[in-house]
Amino acid sequence: MALIVQKYGGTSMGSVERIEHVASKVAKFRAEGHQVVVVVSAMSGETDRLLKMAKSINPRGSSREFDQIAATGEQVTIGLLALALEKAGVKARSYTGPQVAIRTDTSHMKARIQSIDTERLRADCEAGITPVVAGFQGVSPDGSTATLGRGGSDTTGVALAAALKADECQIYTDVDGVYTTDPRVEPKARRLDKITFEEMLELASLGSKVLQIRSVEFAGKYKVPLRVLSTFVDGPGTLITLDEESSVEDPLISGIAFNRDEAQLTVAGVPDRPGIAAAILGPIGDANIEIDMIVQNVGADGSTDFTFTVNRVDYDRAVEVARHTAQELGAKGVRTATDIVKVSLVGVGMRSHAGIASQMFKALAAEGINIQMISTSEIKISVVISEKYLELAVRTLHKSFGLEAGTT
Amino acid sequence: MALIVQKYGGTSMGSVERIEHVASKVAKFRAEGHQVVVVVSAMSGETDRLLKMAKSINPRGSSREFDQIAATGEQVTIGLLALALEKAGVKARSYTGPQVAIRTDTSHMKARIQSIDTERLRADCEAGITPVVAGFQGVSPDGSTATLGRGGSDTTGVALAAALKADECQIYTDVDGVYTTDPRVEPKARRLDKITFEEMLELASLGSKVLQIRSVEFAGKYKVPLRVLSTFVDGPGTLITLDEESSVEDPLISGIAFNRDEAQLTVAGVPDRPGIAAAILGPIGDANIEIDMIVQNVGADGSTDFTFTVNRVDYDRAVEVARHTAQELGAKGVRTATDIVKVSLVGVGMRSHAGIASQMFKALAAEGINIQMISTSEIKISVVISEKYLELAVRTLHKSFGLEAGTT
Repeated sequence: MALIVQKYGGTSMGSVERIEHVASKVAKFRAEGHQVVVVVSAMSGETDRLLKMAKSINPRGSSREFDQIAATGEQVTIGLLALALEKAGVKARSYTGPQVAIRTDTSHMKARIQSIDTERLRADCEAGITPVVAGFQGVSPDGSTATLGRGGSDTTGVALAAALKADECQIYTDVDGVYTTDPRVEPKARRLDKITFEEMLELASLGSKVLQIRSVEFAGKYKVPLRVLSTFVDGPGTLITLDEESSVEDPLISGIAFNRDEAQLTVAGVPDRPGIAAAILGPIGDANIEIDMIVQNVGADGSTDFTFTVNRVDYDRAVEVARHTAQELGAKGVRTATDIVKVSLVGVGMRSHAGIASQMFKALAAEGINIQMISTSEIKISVVISEKYLELAVRTLHKSFGLEAGTT
Repeated sequence: MALIVQKYGGTSMGSVERIEHVASKVAKFRAEGHQVVVVVSAMSGETDRLLKMAKSINPRGSSREFDQIAATGEQVTIGLLALALEKAGVKARSYTGPQVAIRTDTSHMKARIQSIDTERLRADCEAGITPVVAGFQGVSPDGSTATLGRGGSDTTGVALAAALKADECQIYTDVDGVYTTDPRVEPKARRLDKITFEEMLELASLGSKVLQIRSVEFAGKYKVPLRVLSTFVDGPGTLITLDEESSVEDPLISGIAFNRDEAQLTVAGVPDRPGIAAAILGPIGDANIEIDMIVQNVGADGSTDFTFTVNRVDYDRAVEVARHTAQELGAKGVRTATDIVKVSLVGVGMRSHAGIASQMFKALAAEGINIQMISTSEIKISVVISEKYLELAVRTLHKSFGLEAGTT
């Protein structure tokens, strides 16, 4: 008998029928003798609907009030799932974040969990009751409802699993696991049985949107075994664990991520002197724009081209800020590109193996794909290429590194 | 400067535009220097939508879970109104029932308010912040969200006004006050400037569905001046006050109520012996059916006809129970009628004036309207008549007792 935290996302809660399906899944685990604590999201689309209504009244209103409104989405689904569980013969009890209590800081709309009271949940489990907890929300120090930001239900699931010292945190979603890459781009993509937290972080942050990044960080930090599974198709999913469980027989590369949401800015012909990076990136940061990749090349004339990427939603503002800075610095100008993508190889195996980068560059070159930017970390190599080569690059790398189904 | 509690119903919260309209009304009161605490209902139709969804999953589920779900309706509108107030330049802060805290007993779906913490609301008012409180809900002793039952937002408004010792509790609705009778039946019906709590109770319970009965009882008990006004049309509304403010110059009759929702059952030819009323009505009460009027006539043969009315929704069950009882008691049978209505004259003036009943019966007789049942209390006289005479009876009595517009 294990204590399992199961998190079901918005698609799994999308209709009365789906909620009943989730209840039957939970009932099965209960029948097998496991204790289950369930975390749910709002019905898919509901949080957007609520926030859209709120914004139509006052787009710049208090984030506390947006939270008050948005938190109702999960409050509805916890009640509905508890009712469905009761009907399926499983004793259940719903809890909002404040009712648990899941205590957060005061950062409304992006609150962080500070602590969780586990007494009621433990007492319920002991009494054979399945607690159904609202994801995405908690209570701030002044008693207000605070939400954790988009995807926060995953974080709730992992945080509860950590607080309850659960044996596993299962994240049910509409995909049946983590894949070597996006199957829509490479049909030969293969589900991974196992992946490390670090690899998952790189894959998630680079665009394989299976899990919220923060929840993976959290799971890694508190060593909560995390499993991604499908609500709709039975299967083992993908287990996300600590690195120590990997072995030398594991493949070098776990997956290929890509991100279409980036835009590239180059401040060209900047005088090459100390502090120039800060002078260019400072104002971008001040404008609350996050920077992803950064490359600086010193030219022969003692001036430098400074290139960085930002999310496309911030592109217009970033260009404006960069142009202003370029003028102040006496740079030659700002070049921009939005028709680019970032493609990344991810794998803990890289740590102990040389030659991955050169294999990657050779494979891309063989297909005539020009690399515009390169950045590396311990477990990933990212390149920026022209967007039109995305599918070709992913398939080429997927094959080159032996990631196809049936190859391991 | 006064402290005013304003309650806005579901129709007033029915759309983004209407919520903005309410915000402008509240802003006007704030600009006049008043402190305002606002209580709101869910958007009209929303509570029904939520409960329908819950019932579709598990019609016999825990009432605690139904409350968890239903309470979200007001949680959305408090947030939306707070945002609209902010936009209108009024500092505002929303509170759910648990956040206030409005403490209730454990009777989910029909909870009663036990106490209210007023510190935060008072602190807000002192700080120039307008609290926006969710009606219809509170927190039970174990921390669960509990709802007060249908129309409970009125009760929340009155209870808050009592707890805050507010100068007035204003109930904003889609009618501009309490009328001498339903203007759809008698176009000459007149808005009353003033009415006593007792009269309002009789009018409300008899079918003039302006205010929830419990809120009027509450207001009377705690002597909270209550005013019914329209959200959409400016005007003084109707003030509901204590009896002592009435004078001998006041009209004898305040209004004429009627109720189409009754059905009549007669257990005929029952042996007339002690305990017969209990024998007939006991099983009806056991079946959770509320009885309204009761009349017993002893016939010449020592047997009695026992007549009572129930709500039409309970009619089928009541007939079944009564037939069973009739058989057991050796009665002749059960006669039933659903084509009846109850018409009632209401007025505190009746207390000090004889002859009201006879004037009523004469007026009805002059129009050929047969009276089937009569029941009286200190401030009302009710008759049951055939449904087809409803409009004629109301207009006849309205004229006979001088209630037309312009007559006072």
